[in-house]
Amino acid sequence: MKVLGLLVAAFLVTCPCHASDYRVFPLQMKTAYHDQYPTEVSCASWRLAVEANNLIKWKTVPAPCQEYMADYLLGDQYRSDSKTVCREAYFFAKTLNVTHRDIFVFDVDDTTLSNLQYFANHGFGVEEHNATAFKIWVSYGEAFALPETLKLYNKLLSLGIKIVFLTERPLELKDVTISNLKDVGFHTWEKIKDPSIYSGKLSNAFKSSERKKLAEEGYRIVGNIGDQWSDLVGEQRGLRTFKLPNPLYYD
Amino acid sequence: MKVLGLLVAAFLVTCPCHASDYRVFPLQMKTAYHDQYPTEVSCASWRLAVEANNLIKWKTVPAPCQEYMADYLLGDQYRSDSKTVCREAYFFAKTLNVTHRDIFVFDVDDTTLSNLQYFANHGFGVEEHNATAFKIWVSYGEAFALPETLKLYNKLLSLGIKIVFLTERPLELKDVTISNLKDVGFHTWEKIKDPSIYSGKLSNAFKSSERKKLAEEGYRIVGNIGDQWSDLVGEQRGLRTFKLPNPLYYD
Repeated sequence: MKVLGLLVAAFLVTCPCHASDYRVFPLQMKTAYHDQYPTEVSCASWRLAVEANNLIKWKTVPAPCQEYMADYLLGDQYRSDSKTVCREAYFFAKTLNVTHRDIFVFDVDDTTLSNLQYFANHGFGVEEHNATAFKIWVSYGEAFALPETLKLYNKLLSLGIKIVFLTERPLELKDVTISNLKDVGFHTWEKIKDPSIYSGKLSNAFKSSERKKLAEEGYRIVGNIGDQWSDLVGEQRGLRTFKLPNPLYYD
Repeated sequence: MKVLGLLVAAFLVTCPCHASDYRVFPLQMKTAYHDQYPTEVSCASWRLAVEANNLIKWKTVPAPCQEYMADYLLGDQYRSDSKTVCREAYFFAKTLNVTHRDIFVFDVDDTTLSNLQYFANHGFGVEEHNATAFKIWVSYGEAFALPETLKLYNKLLSLGIKIVFLTERPLELKDVTISNLKDVGFHTWEKIKDPSIYSGKLSNAFKSSERKKLAEEGYRIVGNIGDQWSDLVGEQRGLRTFKLPNPLYYD
């Protein structure tokens, strides 16, 4: 409120009080920095642009933002941001007249299971993605549950909504993925969709076609939650979609 | 980096060093607050959820976030967030082979012209929207240009791209809107689309049909920038869309 205080004070000193209401508060957007904004500010803008889908197809987190991302992901904000999204998903689900045909689609990586341990060892998104190293990490099957997603999952089940996990993890990692999910509390689901080939194509093509099949089987996709915009576009995306935060990678 | 430092220190003291690389960094999402997050954190989450289109059809900014929103809008972050979006739009436009049929669609309110003065006098989004008072403010024609949008506008013109403004402002405010735009630097545009009736229907219906007409007239909509998700959905939304920040209202 400091800026506001100063502006009001400046007004009281300098402005002849007249005219209509809006004139007493001659505000406008702050004057730009001549050079660059402080790292904390510009990295927050970068993260916001990612979440709002303004920045697409980016390869890595900007190098000056590594410390910012570590602070974000390990501090309160990431947890709070995730909670806000999951809570909204639950509020929405509560308004539905649920039938046995209703499903909620969950993505796996960084929606359900957290790869934060891996990325903490790999520069918090600043290093270029190493598919081999990442696959080794996944094959350990020791990822933590994302706690706000786990809460949402349990609440949706208690409403009678079925959960379908859709992931582009390769088929050879299906068993370890299932046991990892069970270990951390995701015990029940309708099915995990298998991509028959890990083709490296844009994930929305695979996920979109799987959602379409679900709809053709008579299911109603009431919701769809993922950490990538590609999870949430295409056909049969769901009555509502929910974008969890993930400033670490784009795919 | 404080959190990270502490965790690393804790590890050095307590962890028997063994096993694979990822184990040396046993990170997970922060434990939740038992109660609520601090206002600054929860209001930042609320704002992020708005920008990522997770929160929809909301009526007002949560009352505890009024001061947070004032600080955001009057400080560096809003300007920096806007700059990041506009810069990305320009980077994208530079990659195009521009022809005389290429247009970029701009929304008006809080994309081109700022209503910050109005909202500063009306609780920064916390008060319920007052259509009458807002219309009076608009009728003064004294809104500032959003400076990052103005920069983008001039850069796009210099690339040979035409600008089309699409607004749901009522027809009776067309003249004042045009003179306001001219006064603050938006001198040139192809046309301002007139909604024949200010129907109060969802703006995407009107804007979508106007964009469709433009496409039928042979234009290519290369880009589309607005502060509301409703500006950016529907038909002929553009090759790329750009969501400017606006945590003050939803429509």
